[in-house]
Amino acid sequence: MAEAILKREQVRDYLLELIETHPAGAPIPAERVLCQRLSVSRPTVRSAVEELVNTGLLVRQHGRGTFVARAKITQEMVSGTGSMSLPQASGTWSSRVLEHARIPAGARVGRRLHLSPAADIHYIARLRLVDDEPMALEYLHVPASVAPGLRLHDMESGDFYERLREHGVHVSEAVQSIEPTVVNESEAALLGVPELAPALLFERLTTDAQGRQVEYVHSIYRGDRYKIVSRLTLGASPRSTVDVRAKVGGDPF
Amino acid sequence: MAEAILKREQVRDYLLELIETHPAGAPIPAERVLCQRLSVSRPTVRSAVEELVNTGLLVRQHGRGTFVARAKITQEMVSGTGSMSLPQASGTWSSRVLEHARIPAGARVGRRLHLSPAADIHYIARLRLVDDEPMALEYLHVPASVAPGLRLHDMESGDFYERLREHGVHVSEAVQSIEPTVVNESEAALLGVPELAPALLFERLTTDAQGRQVEYVHSIYRGDRYKIVSRLTLGASPRSTVDVRAKVGGDPF
Repeated sequence: MAEAILKREQVRDYLLELIETHPAGAPIPAERVLCQRLSVSRPTVRSAVEELVNTGLLVRQHGRGTFVARAKITQEMVSGTGSMSLPQASGTWSSRVLEHARIPAGARVGRRLHLSPAADIHYIARLRLVDDEPMALEYLHVPASVAPGLRLHDMESGDFYERLREHGVHVSEAVQSIEPTVVNESEAALLGVPELAPALLFERLTTDAQGRQVEYVHSIYRGDRYKIVSRLTLGASPRSTVDVRAKVGGDPF
Repeated sequence: MAEAILKREQVRDYLLELIETHPAGAPIPAERVLCQRLSVSRPTVRSAVEELVNTGLLVRQHGRGTFVARAKITQEMVSGTGSMSLPQASGTWSSRVLEHARIPAGARVGRRLHLSPAADIHYIARLRLVDDEPMALEYLHVPASVAPGLRLHDMESGDFYERLREHGVHVSEAVQSIEPTVVNESEAALLGVPELAPALLFERLTTDAQGRQVEYVHSIYRGDRYKIVSRLTLGASPRSTVDVRAKVGGDPF
């Protein structure tokens, strides 16, 4: 098992090196060429290629071969001076409203927004696009009491927090979770990816300067086109390094 | 299409509410009961349940029914005062070394670590466990020149950065990327999840107080047992809110 892991790692590294040093659309060598070049078995090569196709770094075109996929859009989370800076993402983003309704919050969304399940919310499903290509599906829930005059037009602009500000709502902070998921059939169709393709699930609860819960959002981001980058300060002094490790325990770090 | 989304959302919300308000292992109602209760079609219910099984929130046991899965281990990234605090995770973490070798860096890892491809690195594959259950696979690459006396034992302790410190290496900061992925066959076997189950792929490049690249890691975290939570400061003043939105553009935020 151990040696198999190492072999697979080496093939993976070789392919990742190809991907990183070649432009999008460049073909990768045929399986038999890779076997010879790396002195590994066909199944090892096939499984490494398969894995990179599954995760979206390579694209297979039947009868034509396998090619380097396009680079992912990078969302940066920067740990700046003083407080955490805000995320930035490359590309030109736009939104298309798929659905909007004024509906009762229901038990689950109501609990998050500190509302009665019967209280009205604005529910909006949006497709987010980057350079006119689908990137994410976003489902927003905003208490009707927070922004009674919210119109559909407000949701079609990407600048939703500025619209909220015009309604007197100043967003202040958010708690956000990130999990991996896979897309279902309808998400796949809307995002233009295969069913069960990897994706990131974000959930965010946003509070305003008065401490009110003003927005609950969950969104699905295409895994083949999106990644998050963050910079972490680990603490340079011996003392804080010890603290860090004591706290980190089971880190991904 | 729009109405179908809303229906599915409502079924999903209903199921998520069940999941959040019931203990791990609690059964969820049969499909036909859900159809009646929510006045939706069987395929709508089935696809919503299927989705939550795929993403690991529900567990299906053939012939027995469908049950609430256990809560995920939560990794917190806190934006504290002054600088970003360090991640914390629940549970008791431990490590098992699957493989270790002193090997040439190769082109790709060498480029990241600013090493010649021929320079030696310590390569270590570890299984990370939480409360003795597999949670992640971690592949570490440390330049041999950075820690020439590194022993296998150093890698079996979870406290790797403290071991590095004993070798005179003080980690200072890291750049980390997070992407969704799916596990391959061997990862699935090691992690105890089905093949193609959702997972998070982390890549991290760590530098020390002297600015040297001291560690390159990539790791695969089980999506059914792991999520990341962060707190974001969005800026309470009208002015900074505008800044935020201008910068965010296409955020998941």
